[in-house]
Amino acid sequence: MTDKEIVEKILEKVAAEGRSSLTAPEGRDVCEAYGIPTPHERLATTAEEAVAQAEEIGLPVVLKIVSPDILHKTEAGGVLVGLATADAVADGFRTIVGNAKAYDADAGITGVQVQQLLTGGQEVIVGATTDRTFGKIVAFGLGGVLVEVLKDVTFRLAPLDRDQAFSMIDGIAAAEVLRGVRGAEPVSRDALAEVLTRVGALVTDFPQLAEVDLNPVLATADGATAVDVRILVDPEAAREPVRFSQEEILASMTRIMKPASIAVIGASAEAGKIGNSVMKNLVDGGFAGEIHPVNPKAAEILDHKAYPSISDVPGDVDVAIFAIPAKFVPAALEEAGRKGVAGAILIPSGFGETGNIALQDQVVAIARGHGVRILGPNIYGYYYTPENLSATFCTPYDVKGGVALSSQSGGIGMAILGFSRSAKMGVSSIVGVGNKADIDEDDLLTFFEHDENTELIAMHLEDLKDGRSFAETAKRVSARKPVVVLKAGRTTQGAKAASSHTGALAGDDKVYDDILRQSGVIRAPGLNDLLEFARGIPLLPTPKGENVVIITGAGGSGVLLSDACVDNGLNLMEIPPDLDTAFRKFIPPFGAAGNPIDITGGEPPATYRNTIALGLEDERIHALILGYWHTIVTPPMVFAELVSEVVSEYRAKGIHKPVVASLAGDVEVEEASDFLYQHGVVAYPYTTEKPVAVLGAKYRWARSAGLLG
Amino acid sequence: MTDKEIVEKILEKVAAEGRSSLTAPEGRDVCEAYGIPTPHERLATTAEEAVAQAEEIGLPVVLKIVSPDILHKTEAGGVLVGLATADAVADGFRTIVGNAKAYDADAGITGVQVQQLLTGGQEVIVGATTDRTFGKIVAFGLGGVLVEVLKDVTFRLAPLDRDQAFSMIDGIAAAEVLRGVRGAEPVSRDALAEVLTRVGALVTDFPQLAEVDLNPVLATADGATAVDVRILVDPEAAREPVRFSQEEILASMTRIMKPASIAVIGASAEAGKIGNSVMKNLVDGGFAGEIHPVNPKAAEILDHKAYPSISDVPGDVDVAIFAIPAKFVPAALEEAGRKGVAGAILIPSGFGETGNIALQDQVVAIARGHGVRILGPNIYGYYYTPENLSATFCTPYDVKGGVALSSQSGGIGMAILGFSRSAKMGVSSIVGVGNKADIDEDDLLTFFEHDENTELIAMHLEDLKDGRSFAETAKRVSARKPVVVLKAGRTTQGAKAASSHTGALAGDDKVYDDILRQSGVIRAPGLNDLLEFARGIPLLPTPKGENVVIITGAGGSGVLLSDACVDNGLNLMEIPPDLDTAFRKFIPPFGAAGNPIDITGGEPPATYRNTIALGLEDERIHALILGYWHTIVTPPMVFAELVSEVVSEYRAKGIHKPVVASLAGDVEVEEASDFLYQHGVVAYPYTTEKPVAVLGAKYRWARSAGLLG
Repeated sequence: MTDKEIVEKILEKVAAEGRSSLTAPEGRDVCEAYGIPTPHERLATTAEEAVAQAEEIGLPVVLKIVSPDILHKTEAGGVLVGLATADAVADGFRTIVGNAKAYDADAGITGVQVQQLLTGGQEVIVGATTDRTFGKIVAFGLGGVLVEVLKDVTFRLAPLDRDQAFSMIDGIAAAEVLRGVRGAEPVSRDALAEVLTRVGALVTDFPQLAEVDLNPVLATADGATAVDVRILVDPEAAREPVRFSQEEILASMTRIMKPASIAVIGASAEAGKIGNSVMKNLVDGGFAGEIHPVNPKAAEILDHKAYPSISDVPGDVDVAIFAIPAKFVPAALEEAGRKGVAGAILIPSGFGETGNIALQDQVVAIARGHGVRILGPNIYGYYYTPENLSATFCTPYDVKGGVALSSQSGGIGMAILGFSRSAKMGVSSIVGVGNKADIDEDDLLTFFEHDENTELIAMHLEDLKDGRSFAETAKRVSARKPVVVLKAGRTTQGAKAASSHTGALAGDDKVYDDILRQSGVIRAPGLNDLLEFARGIPLLPTPKGENVVIITGAGGSGVLLSDACVDNGLNLMEIPPDLDTAFRKFIPPFGAAGNPIDITGGEPPATYRNTIALGLEDERIHALILGYWHTIVTPPMVFAELVSEVVSEYRAKGIHKPVVASLAGDVEVEEASDFLYQHGVVAYPYTTEKPVAVLGAKYRWARSAGLLG
Repeated sequence: MTDKEIVEKILEKVAAEGRSSLTAPEGRDVCEAYGIPTPHERLATTAEEAVAQAEEIGLPVVLKIVSPDILHKTEAGGVLVGLATADAVADGFRTIVGNAKAYDADAGITGVQVQQLLTGGQEVIVGATTDRTFGKIVAFGLGGVLVEVLKDVTFRLAPLDRDQAFSMIDGIAAAEVLRGVRGAEPVSRDALAEVLTRVGALVTDFPQLAEVDLNPVLATADGATAVDVRILVDPEAAREPVRFSQEEILASMTRIMKPASIAVIGASAEAGKIGNSVMKNLVDGGFAGEIHPVNPKAAEILDHKAYPSISDVPGDVDVAIFAIPAKFVPAALEEAGRKGVAGAILIPSGFGETGNIALQDQVVAIARGHGVRILGPNIYGYYYTPENLSATFCTPYDVKGGVALSSQSGGIGMAILGFSRSAKMGVSSIVGVGNKADIDEDDLLTFFEHDENTELIAMHLEDLKDGRSFAETAKRVSARKPVVVLKAGRTTQGAKAASSHTGALAGDDKVYDDILRQSGVIRAPGLNDLLEFARGIPLLPTPKGENVVIITGAGGSGVLLSDACVDNGLNLMEIPPDLDTAFRKFIPPFGAAGNPIDITGGEPPATYRNTIALGLEDERIHALILGYWHTIVTPPMVFAELVSEVVSEYRAKGIHKPVVASLAGDVEVEEASDFLYQHGVVAYPYTTEKPVAVLGAKYRWARSAGLLG
């Protein structure tokens, strides 16, 4: 259906003429070659020709100037719409050419496009642009001024398949318009999806196409036609970042995360020095492998024999930790490279972040030359708890568990450490990526994907070096393990300077948001959400379906928990009559069954227990949200204990459902919430939002990983 | 400019004919009487008349059937647009009448409206409807299918002034369209505001107008014309709720909140009984007034002489607390009424909330008969700490301060109590309003407005009995004291059954949102926000302007704090060159001035101190957000102490600016945050969102109270 050769020939001509854009007829030919319908049209060079062509196509027609030198045709008075008679066409031809010459006396005029006038249908915009993070992306939105104002557009990586195309058509806020409103016929989703996938294929096959703008595409019940086509070419747009293979990444990362031997370059016996803190943490953290301090002026540091240079260390070294000033790094890295280390952990600052990009480029070049991977520079280091490895100048971390975290910023890394310790969050790894001169989130994801000690990956990031690679990796990883991302700087970038509609619409954050979601990533709206999601999601069993039930002692909590369900895209189960009857047996007559199930305040522990047990027992229910109300009859710890008992009873029977709880009451609910959390129930005091947000995050992951069946 | 008599006469006719809607010509006349422009039009009863009128008005024209029996004209084939010749008009007349007869053979046909065809301009919708909470409200949005799908509409109470009308025009998401995009002329805001205020006046003057739909109104650079008018009449729509005067409310509420004498009906010596808990809390809480247990079977309870009936209590009684089952309340209330109590605190449940509406109505009637105000029923009671008054079955609360809180739900009340105690939040009052049979948020607001012990009012509510009264009261109160509202149930109501566009667009929550905002209320998105806003806002001085500056040790926190500023509508100050230079003096060369000011990690306390001091000193800066990064050089408590020192130094000099802080670090940042909070700096660990959200809430209040100058 596609004809690459036609496009190749056109692009050769454009390149030969040194142009950066295609003419309208060229654009049309490119579309037709890729099976994207365009209106019937001809190129006229005289008024007479225009009239003949118009009569052949069928009146009324549109006339448009064709000139390689005129990009903004309307501005140049180069467009006339709805010419209905032969005379009008002849006059129109002359007017347009006149206007074009007046607009730019030097413009070369190829002719005038005579185009079929399409009416009716819904205007949409389909485009492709070259994003600096993600490369080729496809955009879709409704046409018209309103959408331009409201920025109701969606993006996907190119190429894309039909399902992704459908998800775009359904993914804009105004999607209902395409399904037909006020008696309008629905547009052909198939035809639109076809255009979207073909545009994706086109820019993938020809990466030098920097921007493709089909605006408008006229979508009707029968088809979709690209009325106006604008294509920009830029050889730069075809550049691809360097990538390592999965095998290469895994080989290096495994040696880095599970090293047998570590050298600390700049190790020091002097308290307060970074080289001392790193040594102390390695030793005190309980790392069982070899630790070799490197310091030309010391014989021994912390009971470990010191060496003047890494070259002097006996045997293989997997990881070299650099605790020396930036300016000494190149020479030391050269030696470490010759020694054959897998990873260079560059703690020092003074590289790209202070403007010293040359130095950073230099160390990357040295590392590449030796096949060494760099973590950092400008980082606190990293933790890998299964190996008792605290390769950092912060304090050791020892609560082992399945959560791997990374941060681009040192400050955020410290917040991760503090929160984890305070919440007793079981962690497999905490990694600072800093300047990301080399190792980035993509490498970490690939390692953690295969790491049997990691169940969930949570990442703070400010940018992605290679968003396309990250998206593809995250898609693969998140099918097995939840990936939570806090993307900082989402509001600072603003619109980029762009010369096409699609480019102008592609605000950084919307592109990130759409593509991360498509990759199955759970996006955390803020730092605290990142931390709470990381802590809570692994604790919750994966739900088997969408039916969520709220059981609450406080009607007021029930209402707020329902609000939170809607906010988090959770589906409050419609309770079937038999189940309703079953619940009613346990609750007072003035309680409310339905959903939320309001057992009413002042009920004894048995009422909580019976209703929760029924919620766990009944196969049609997939998740429980509990609203507790502090009373004398059922005090907080009594509630906490009964809930953890009944939940573990059912887990023992093989019934695993996510249970979260909101506790409303006096200060004792804090202890009760902690107790519940330690027993596998995600519970919080004084908030109805947080427990539901964590459950919602678990659901988002389960849905995108296809686990809900 | 308005002519009420014309409208009166039309409505008399409609009422006399038992109709519930106006005909199009009647609607047009109503509009014209209120100075709302409509297209030129005539009523034709024959085809010949139609032709003559069309030629008089000017071709092309629109023809529309006029029939009291046909509401949906288009559906009945009763509308033809763009008839450009006399023949077309004559044919059109016959076609329309024929269609109408075919649609409904029994329909009375008044004639055919011949209307000027307006073209160009922007279609908008202006309407008014009768909201069950707020009464008459005016709606505004763009016309067209897209807006209907995207629900981009805004609401205000009717009547409204020109400023409010302008705030509607500017308040829709697509407002930019009206200001002219893609070279279109901006529409006349004056003309649109005129239509909005006139519609507001119309439904205020004639409350029986249940719905007014001007759809579309064609807005151009010169004017705004109501092209189609639909008006529905319903005598029920004119009903107004009963209201007390401010003086009446204050008189009762003051006796209730500051009573000299309290009777506890159903007081008990038996531990575990509500009547015992209430007595204990009154006594243990340290209430200094008289406490009179009422119990026919006891002589003394907790060392207080008991009386068989409230009638036997000597002297005046201000408040009677009911701790008896619901069924005994009417008789006891009758007695309390005769005794002349100001307030009856109905703790028992078993009224409206369990379906026993008749009993609830009965007690309200008894109370009204005696001029008694009822709090509840179905509540935990209330606290008023300045009087050491804990009139509740929960535990006493003794951290005095300026925050007054109320909750509609008992569970939420317990969460308020627990959070307050845990956070050591200074509270003036906590009130449960429960079923709100009588006293509601409006009464509380009025009391707290004048209460010298209250600085801020925070309310959890699920509905408003009289939203109009609340909105007016809140507007008055919030000009002096911040009013924070958590409106629960915001997502559950769904669209109401409605017969007009305006009605269908008026989803409950959007109406609440718009009107609460107009009333100066700070809406809390969730329970935890309500509590944190209540705690933090009174601590922060009111900013004098919009210039917010971030000073951060961690670049990563700076980015997230900037995101949070955008999320919360805060304005990151553009730092003028001289100030930039001044900041640069204190920070390392590779630090970033600008805003955020990144002092970089690893800086000593002096760098924090100097930059913060400069931020407080410089008059152009109005608020500070601090991002702290835990390092050995400046440990958490050192940071906390230096910040509180420098802040209090400047407060001593009379410089009061809001300062909030986000602390990233190991667990010691928790203690440091508490310390800061206790010293007037709103600080949180492990979150960049919360401190900025509290500052944002303070700003929203300061802005709407007109305090930013």
